[in-house]
Amino acid sequence: MTATITHKPDPKLDLVLERVVNVPPHLVWAAWTTPEYIKKWFTPAPWQTVDCQIDLRPGGIFRTVMRSPEGQEFPNTGCYLEVIENEKLVWTAALKPGYRPQNAASALLFTAVILLEPQGAGTKYTAIAIHGDEETAKKHADMGFHDGWGKVLDQLVTLAKTM
Amino acid sequence: MTATITHKPDPKLDLVLERVVNVPPHLVWAAWTTPEYIKKWFTPAPWQTVDCQIDLRPGGIFRTVMRSPEGQEFPNTGCYLEVIENEKLVWTAALKPGYRPQNAASALLFTAVILLEPQGAGTKYTAIAIHGDEETAKKHADMGFHDGWGKVLDQLVTLAKTM
Repeated sequence: MTATITHKPDPKLDLVLERVVNVPPHLVWAAWTTPEYIKKWFTPAPWQTVDCQIDLRPGGIFRTVMRSPEGQEFPNTGCYLEVIENEKLVWTAALKPGYRPQNAASALLFTAVILLEPQGAGTKYTAIAIHGDEETAKKHADMGFHDGWGKVLDQLVTLAKTM
Repeated sequence: MTATITHKPDPKLDLVLERVVNVPPHLVWAAWTTPEYIKKWFTPAPWQTVDCQIDLRPGGIFRTVMRSPEGQEFPNTGCYLEVIENEKLVWTAALKPGYRPQNAASALLFTAVILLEPQGAGTKYTAIAIHGDEETAKKHADMGFHDGWGKVLDQLVTLAKTM
């Protein structure tokens, strides 16, 4: 297998959440790659993730449906790019399954890179959201990237401890 | 390594060139993955490819600069998605290197899947151009996809026979 690239965030274009959590990488991985688990942690409460579809391989589907407290549903369909068990998960909203380009130019398009490294009994968790331009990165930041991704990581850790 | 998906073209959204050529897969692969070779076959004459940059791994850059007979240059920067030596090469114009979404919504975005299978002493060559909507697929067809990709495949075969 060919080596994959390293991801050095661009401070103008990328948003990064880095934290050490006290659950091991394989449980974080399970939380990220199992539909029933995704439904339990992926969306900051009181929002919910009411549906999830995962085909865990490059080109496979990653689909979620988020529901607002008012009951409005927001489906998101993306595509996995890299799947390295317990280490690295990459998916993008810029492609549909099978690497088909998205035709929704107005959507908030980003690629997510999730990196897991063992640290003691826990995990160094790095999430990078990669954007095509500064405007999109700023929009994502203003939508509450850091609070939101931090809050759901708390939810993930709480869930992982029950596994 | 995780299995990758198979690519079943959608007749409304995808363009396909399939042909058996009388050079073996490893030479077709070399032609597709070596900048000096790309410059010799990638663009239908009298157009030229005057520059090429390749970082052959998922997330790596695939950049070409085409020059028209009038001397106008057209740079294209895409990103590799799958690299399986002598078998499968996937790259997309919808992402920049490092999986960064393109911000040029007006460009002709497509993903290219190149499949090579040994057939006798030659290669069954399948090129699939995957689009996000029918309009883009039609535009690509009207730009001469079949003639163009067929003509450059002839150029590739001529080159491969000199390797």
